Amino acid sequence: MRLEKFIHLLGERGFDGALISPGTNLYYLTGLRLHEVGERLAILAVSAEGDYRFLAPSLYENVVNNFPATFWHDGENPYAKLREILEELGISKGRILIEDTMRADWLIGIMKLGKFTFQPLSSLIKELRMIKDKEEVKMMEHASRIADKVFEEILTWDLIGMKERELALKIELLIRELSDGIAFEPIVASGENAANPHHEPGERKIRKGDIIILDYGARWKGYCSDITRTIGLGELDERLVKIYEVVKDAQESAFKAVREGIKAKDVDSRAREVISKAGYGEYFIHRTGHGLGLDVHEEPYIGPDGEVILKNGMTFTIEPGIYVPGLGGVRIEDDIVVDEGKGRRLTKAERELIIL
Amino acid sequence: MRLEKFIHLLGERGFDGALISPGTNLYYLTGLRLHEVGERLAILAVSAEGDYRFLAPSLYENVVNNFPATFWHDGENPYAKLREILEELGISKGRILIEDTMRADWLIGIMKLGKFTFQPLSSLIKELRMIKDKEEVKMMEHASRIADKVFEEILTWDLIGMKERELALKIELLIRELSDGIAFEPIVASGENAANPHHEPGERKIRKGDIIILDYGARWKGYCSDITRTIGLGELDERLVKIYEVVKDAQESAFKAVREGIKAKDVDSRAREVISKAGYGEYFIHRTGHGLGLDVHEEPYIGPDGEVILKNGMTFTIEPGIYVPGLGGVRIEDDIVVDEGKGRRLTKAERELIIL
Repeated sequence: MRLEKFIHLLGERGFDGALISPGTNLYYLTGLRLHEVGERLAILAVSAEGDYRFLAPSLYENVVNNFPATFWHDGENPYAKLREILEELGISKGRILIEDTMRADWLIGIMKLGKFTFQPLSSLIKELRMIKDKEEVKMMEHASRIADKVFEEILTWDLIGMKERELALKIELLIRELSDGIAFEPIVASGENAANPHHEPGERKIRKGDIIILDYGARWKGYCSDITRTIGLGELDERLVKIYEVVKDAQESAFKAVREGIKAKDVDSRAREVISKAGYGEYFIHRTGHGLGLDVHEEPYIGPDGEVILKNGMTFTIEPGIYVPGLGGVRIEDDIVVDEGKGRRLTKAERELIIL
Repeated sequence: MRLEKFIHLLGERGFDGALISPGTNLYYLTGLRLHEVGERLAILAVSAEGDYRFLAPSLYENVVNNFPATFWHDGENPYAKLREILEELGISKGRILIEDTMRADWLIGIMKLGKFTFQPLSSLIKELRMIKDKEEVKMMEHASRIADKVFEEILTWDLIGMKERELALKIELLIRELSDGIAFEPIVASGENAANPHHEPGERKIRKGDIIILDYGARWKGYCSDITRTIGLGELDERLVKIYEVVKDAQESAFKAVREGIKAKDVDSRAREVISKAGYGEYFIHRTGHGLGLDVHEEPYIGPDGEVILKNGMTFTIEPGIYVPGLGGVRIEDDIVVDEGKGRRLTKAERELIIL
């Protein structure tokens, strides 16, 4: 069904075909999931005429069932087989969509098979994937409920003296127990490390007076949640308390701006406005949010350049933050669905500042 | 040092430059490691003239220190900045090496910046990376020792009734405790699942009479180990016992063939010979091994098409297997270094059939 819709769209936009390597787009279109395919060529070739064939390593013969497929063995040249498939499907030239996350060495190999112009697959498939159907939203609600539950659980733990790395592992294990797995490696950034939005949890021990950013998510039937909460341990530097309130206001303000028909960048600008007015504009160094679904980062991106017009069924994060080098940082993130014309939070964990 | 060697090689082979996205090659050349950069453009541009500059998202300003870098902010067009860098370095056209694992959408963006011909980076850098220095071998020895230790530990566990998934998690946690992390998601394939070399551990409960393939590895300072052992629980089907002996002989035979100066494919053919003679040729459906180092799969590949000539300092796996649908399978894998002209095992865990 989804594959048919995609093929229809392909023709409509004047593309000749698409070459799709394993990942969430392949899963979305076909249900096919190949575990750790690595450097071994595996590509679904689709023509705008409606023909398609999957080329896969013979290792995966057991996994690919009831799908038109050709297998290649270690030692064979898979590009020779791909060339045959492209000829059969009549897409040895023309405008071809390429899976965004395909390995560049595969694309370099494909370039030699014909005279093509390439465009990233996401540019087209996002039109389908951006709008979640009711089933998809249900799975994201479930993944979000798990994220909430994990946060409640964390609040009962004795964090003092725990290494960031240990806390991140504890969070990961709880997520894995409750869900199909982590959506990404949990971030635990404590004290001055909280000033780095992509901090890798390390050896630092959590202590009194720390601000702690917790950013994690769960997967449920392929769909992700992604939540951030920032908590304090004992008495916080009052500048951090001030910053917390600014970020909370920015997050709420952006959330309230969500409605069908406005552009993503207008949600971003609401968060940015609140933070700039409070004098922290230069410390808000990332987008306000990103689309969420089968991927942790997908369309629509909620940033200053977000031209996507919000529609019912879109799901994304709102996660403004302020990061002051040497002091620390605060980020608050919820997952949002546009529902009946306006925003609805999927993650519902406490947003007021919690001091343990 | 390594970067200088690489630049020298670049010029020597007539390349104009290289574009390197985050990953093990970037780490090998510069020590730079960017955590979960995702879709945000991050590229080291290197010219054969010896100039280089790293373009990175501003999020990573804290991480990239003491290295010539340009940062771009969310909302900016990173390709415009990359164009400027390429012009500065004088590599807006010509023969360019591209990191193999770079995302295809980045490469599509790069294609628009000039008139290039591309070649995968691995084709050149493998010449450096394939030969490990003493420090690198030490780290791999350590990673291998951890793998051995984990196997000894597994033998003390009560496996009956455990789900594959649970055992895989238990292995993962032990590896994480002993090392810098897992080299890849552990494979636990029990009973008839052992017939699938890339089986994803699932809900199947381990029971008496099962054959179990355990395939896992640890990371130490970036370097990987990768071991497979196959064990039995209670009385095994005698066909599996027979198969075990064939695989063990094939592995030993291939190991003994390792010496400086022979081709990788001649190691592969030794394992294949033993298995074919025993009548299981059609059930050995993958290569005999793969190079191992900062990546779990790297050069030299030990397959029927392996033209690489083995040299001292090369490290790779030898892991023949036999997989009989409906019955099960056996694989035995060790990590090998070519040392003083011949093979030396880095993993030393028991290779005789163990029945628990």
